[in-house]
Amino acid sequence: MAFNSSKFDPNFTDNVINAIGPKTSDRAKFVLSSLIRHVHDFAREVELTTDEWMAGVLFMNAVGQISDSKRNEGQRISDVLGLESLVDEIAHKIALETDDIPTSSSILGPFWSPNAPFRNNGESIIHELPKDGRVTLMHGTVNDLITKKPIGNAVFDIWQASSNGKYDFQDPENQSDNNLRGKFRTDENGRYHFYCLHPTAYSLPTDGPAFKLLNLLDRHPMRPAHIHLMVSHDSYKPVTTQIFPKDDPYLETDTVFAVKDDLVVDFKPLQGDPKASLELEYNVKLAPRDIAPASAHL
Amino acid sequence: MAFNSSKFDPNFTDNVINAIGPKTSDRAKFVLSSLIRHVHDFAREVELTTDEWMAGVLFMNAVGQISDSKRNEGQRISDVLGLESLVDEIAHKIALETDDIPTSSSILGPFWSPNAPFRNNGESIIHELPKDGRVTLMHGTVNDLITKKPIGNAVFDIWQASSNGKYDFQDPENQSDNNLRGKFRTDENGRYHFYCLHPTAYSLPTDGPAFKLLNLLDRHPMRPAHIHLMVSHDSYKPVTTQIFPKDDPYLETDTVFAVKDDLVVDFKPLQGDPKASLELEYNVKLAPRDIAPASAHL
Repeated sequence: MAFNSSKFDPNFTDNVINAIGPKTSDRAKFVLSSLIRHVHDFAREVELTTDEWMAGVLFMNAVGQISDSKRNEGQRISDVLGLESLVDEIAHKIALETDDIPTSSSILGPFWSPNAPFRNNGESIIHELPKDGRVTLMHGTVNDLITKKPIGNAVFDIWQASSNGKYDFQDPENQSDNNLRGKFRTDENGRYHFYCLHPTAYSLPTDGPAFKLLNLLDRHPMRPAHIHLMVSHDSYKPVTTQIFPKDDPYLETDTVFAVKDDLVVDFKPLQGDPKASLELEYNVKLAPRDIAPASAHL
Repeated sequence: MAFNSSKFDPNFTDNVINAIGPKTSDRAKFVLSSLIRHVHDFAREVELTTDEWMAGVLFMNAVGQISDSKRNEGQRISDVLGLESLVDEIAHKIALETDDIPTSSSILGPFWSPNAPFRNNGESIIHELPKDGRVTLMHGTVNDLITKKPIGNAVFDIWQASSNGKYDFQDPENQSDNNLRGKFRTDENGRYHFYCLHPTAYSLPTDGPAFKLLNLLDRHPMRPAHIHLMVSHDSYKPVTTQIFPKDDPYLETDTVFAVKDDLVVDFKPLQGDPKASLELEYNVKLAPRDIAPASAHL
């Protein structure tokens, strides 16, 4: 430990942990004991002042006060501190007996909707095309990581912000429900295709505690342009991820730490399709459900 | 570290910390870097699951959502985890060249009011006497820790719950503003005296996240009976503390970890005073302001 622990009561933290009663489950006791020890070690290590502690308490209250059914500021604070990305890494660490790896996961974020409609291959998720929107034909295959065979009837769920950086339910004036959302099923060859937008970089909201925290950290609030994906099939481990255009200026400094090398993709000019000016081929590899995870909690 | 850190990206936490920009103050960088490292170490150590993380996010949002100008649930969560008591210890650790120590501090809690009126020695802080209330004559002296001389004109601020466990602003039906609150000044001999209630043990509120956390920890929500005190004088370090009757059944298991041995007091039967049936003598020792603290932050 970096601090002189002898200055403070050496039994205090143990006393708090030992107050946990016998009816608490082993897992809850393990998690909460670790949480208490880290919170106390943090306070001792930095010799947290009363004013700093109260600033933290009021910050925590403000996080909840600005949250509602359409805004999850607690999740956003997690994201700014890298915690959602870390939890994602912990959940998806897989020890495989092969050199190949499945498509990397990335954070869900607060904008997924359970209500996105199923659409047919070849349809568009764009209800309202913004003036500066660049329509993209996105297509590819979903394959088995081990056998390399195509996976038919996989569900390919996509959601993205419009070119103003807003998702449908954040932007009811300009976007109808389920604009830029949709679920597709792969065909018997594991193939999918649909029309979407080239994504646009955007800022996290600047009216709440997350932006205050970013200012305190002297960091920008920008996310690189990205498309959210969730690909699933009953026989495979699902993957929730994001993909990022390779020329985005915020790839290296994503404010929620969600970029991974294999999630950076290349949008290419498309000729001969009156519906789209860009093309993106994106292929997904899913790991069978019965592969042992590295983590006991998967 | 208790976990096999090699399983996870060894650079992730450093990347998040190194994103802190140059305009962040040294202190904020130090505190937030430690916070990020402890939060990440906690998540890796327990291999925090996605569901557990999201439960924590929703818990944090709920803490703010139930808080308002009369309720600080964030502070209550701190208290249940021992953090306010620990911050209090950190703030008040004093390295003295004497065997004597000043009156121990204890946590402020969420019920202090800046509006308590000054009252004259000998007056009562009881506006509404509950049927089961036991009136106590409380008296004593405030002395200099080093010289032992009495301190005149010290401010003795007291607040306490009524026998139903509620403070005035939690209980507007039964209590008028500033019931069971008052500020007194010590006389030229450092003496104070007034009438108050023998305090009553009470439960933390059971309708919010703090009670959910206590249930998860299999702990009771009870605080031992106590009287809050804040004693101050321009030439001395102020002390915020609480005192506890020695026969209270919750002394060993105070749900906010605020009891210290020298804060346990003895209420005695009082004869010959028609206004009170109990007596409490309580003397306070204050340290001069110029004594060096152990912590650099005092």
